[in-house]
Amino acid sequence: MNRVPLEGKVLNENARVAAELRERFREHRVLVVNLISSPGSGKTTLLEKTLENFSPAEKVAVLTGDLQTENDANRLKRYGFPVKQITTGGTCHLDARMIEKHTADWDLEKLDLLIVENVGNLVCPSSYDLGEAAKIVLLSVTEGEDKPLKYPSIFFKSELMVLTKTDLLPYVPFDAAVAIENARRVHADIEVVKVSCLTGRGMQDWLKWLEQRRQTFLAGLSQPVG
Amino acid sequence: MNRVPLEGKVLNENARVAAELRERFREHRVLVVNLISSPGSGKTTLLEKTLENFSPAEKVAVLTGDLQTENDANRLKRYGFPVKQITTGGTCHLDARMIEKHTADWDLEKLDLLIVENVGNLVCPSSYDLGEAAKIVLLSVTEGEDKPLKYPSIFFKSELMVLTKTDLLPYVPFDAAVAIENARRVHADIEVVKVSCLTGRGMQDWLKWLEQRRQTFLAGLSQPVG
Repeated sequence: MNRVPLEGKVLNENARVAAELRERFREHRVLVVNLISSPGSGKTTLLEKTLENFSPAEKVAVLTGDLQTENDANRLKRYGFPVKQITTGGTCHLDARMIEKHTADWDLEKLDLLIVENVGNLVCPSSYDLGEAAKIVLLSVTEGEDKPLKYPSIFFKSELMVLTKTDLLPYVPFDAAVAIENARRVHADIEVVKVSCLTGRGMQDWLKWLEQRRQTFLAGLSQPVG
Repeated sequence: MNRVPLEGKVLNENARVAAELRERFREHRVLVVNLISSPGSGKTTLLEKTLENFSPAEKVAVLTGDLQTENDANRLKRYGFPVKQITTGGTCHLDARMIEKHTADWDLEKLDLLIVENVGNLVCPSSYDLGEAAKIVLLSVTEGEDKPLKYPSIFFKSELMVLTKTDLLPYVPFDAAVAIENARRVHADIEVVKVSCLTGRGMQDWLKWLEQRRQTFLAGLSQPVG
């Protein structure tokens, strides 16, 4: 099916808006990360535990995408930080225009960190730049070790792979070392943290990664956009 | 983003090819089912256990879709039935043309059942008719009970929901009754079977469903295409 010409046009337009967003986020010194995974890999749960760990003084906000329902925003609003749901209707990914629209009335000066939770989809969101500083892919240990090989684009484009639901490792046929090896066959430099949101194990590694990424981001602001 | 005009054209063309396929499958009395789920919900494992349960005399074939790798076909070929991998490159779903192309050299007279395993994606495959008699959605118990509400299209269009990985129920915060209730809010008549491919529990319900669906299909062949 020949969808290339229109897809190219759509992606060019998206890239243009994303570049503007990126510039805006840099101006206001807001680190933006874009969380991508299959449905049910634990993006929202990771965010719940992340927000729970933050002090109320932390300047963090969340945009959370789904085809339907406000469920995720309702779950995340309980922690007292600004949260907005982006309901895409049928669209299988977030795009830069949606981020532009939903951040238009936010005072970015009041933010240090914006976490975007994409629609649950391991394929399409990888094509849409949202102006983020970093993409992060989640893979739950129930999904199988070969996912990085089957869905290489998102693993190639992500700085970090978060292996989630590690508490289930005793009950599933999943070898974390093999999964990491597969991810590194696609993207040699991908970083990895392993977390269990149920037990809290690994949460500090994840929070440390976020903090260090913010430091790198701020240090990079003196350089031109890459 | 205005993608509607081209998407409409693509879907119309897909529907045309799918209608031809459906007619061809009916002529040759082949029941075709289209398995759809998130990546890692257990489609390939369910197929492994299904083929393992079939007698060698069973006239079944499998088409299995992925963005990359021949992993699934290699796993499924061990059971001695015809299996073909459809590698889509970047495309996030199977379409009717791919099915047409990959079944072109098969003698459908020699088949009773064709199982199509779609690309792992709970969104996009729901829009593409493959000429199947029935769509089947898999949901693993690790994915959360609200998935039918967040991804309603595929649950609305599926005749059956297979709840997979039920052996993990003791270790995950998942209430099967709530998941089923959510699926039925979207699609009141959806049928449900629960399986654990690890323990084999529920496999007979699934095989029975397939057999009964085949009987309904054959009984319906005397009627015009609906």
